[in-house]
Amino acid sequence: MLLKRTLLLSATLAVLSSGIALADMKPEDAIKTRQAGYMFMGWNMAKIKAMAVDNSEDFDTKKMQAAANAIAAIANSGMGALYMPGTEKDIGNVKTRAKAEIFTDKEGVKEVAVKFIQAANEMQKVAQGDDVFAIADQFKKLGSSCKACHDKYRKE
Amino acid sequence: MLLKRTLLLSATLAVLSSGIALADMKPEDAIKTRQAGYMFMGWNMAKIKAMAVDNSEDFDTKKMQAAANAIAAIANSGMGALYMPGTEKDIGNVKTRAKAEIFTDKEGVKEVAVKFIQAANEMQKVAQGDDVFAIADQFKKLGSSCKACHDKYRKE
Repeated sequence: MLLKRTLLLSATLAVLSSGIALADMKPEDAIKTRQAGYMFMGWNMAKIKAMAVDNSEDFDTKKMQAAANAIAAIANSGMGALYMPGTEKDIGNVKTRAKAEIFTDKEGVKEVAVKFIQAANEMQKVAQGDDVFAIADQFKKLGSSCKACHDKYRKE
Repeated sequence: MLLKRTLLLSATLAVLSSGIALADMKPEDAIKTRQAGYMFMGWNMAKIKAMAVDNSEDFDTKKMQAAANAIAAIANSGMGALYMPGTEKDIGNVKTRAKAEIFTDKEGVKEVAVKFIQAANEMQKVAQGDDVFAIADQFKKLGSSCKACHDKYRKE
């Protein structure tokens, strides 16, 4: 009887506690964190562009790989969780450009998200080599996958 | 003669152009980007803590690896470049908690940076397995390496 109660309690606690880390997060922090992820990816996109597209920076294999690694790791970090309830609108000074549709159009969001993650993973792979044309080509594909989401789900 | 001039021009352009991507960056954007990196790492540290230390979230191997990958990739992305001249002080609404010493104490900064990157790389390695105690142990070591820098170079 005591064991049964203990097991039931454990199971209930497990259900209740799964996601507490996220539940603990304030909506304004979720907005800031997703924006931080995009901003940090943007910085690394700029590095790839400078080295492989604009040639305004010397090509550096390690720097290129590090930039692509950062983008891929952030892309794969489960940022969808940061679009939690309560993050649909500005919260005080914390502004969001997310359109209402990103919180409702699950299928459409999944489609752009999967394409983006695939492009980021491919970018990471291509960056392991030193074929600057392949890198530039994949950079453009990755950029398009970013834009596909911005066009559909981000306010101007 | 024409060839000589062209070669000289190319070399001069190469010297001038190396680092333009960074030179193009506004100091306020460099401050925001480094803060974005720390914030995004913090979110992923919280996920590892919830799964391996507090047990407030169910252990999930993929989520754990993704969190450790994000931290390691950001740690290895060359964030030192974001401490560029002009980023020592607040710029309008863009506040920085960086102490003056982080811009001058090169040896000391290198020491904490190397230890932090090593701890983040080890965290990434340990997260490939499912030894939750090893993960919790490495999480604490990684946290200490963050704190070592905060204590020395960040204003309260």
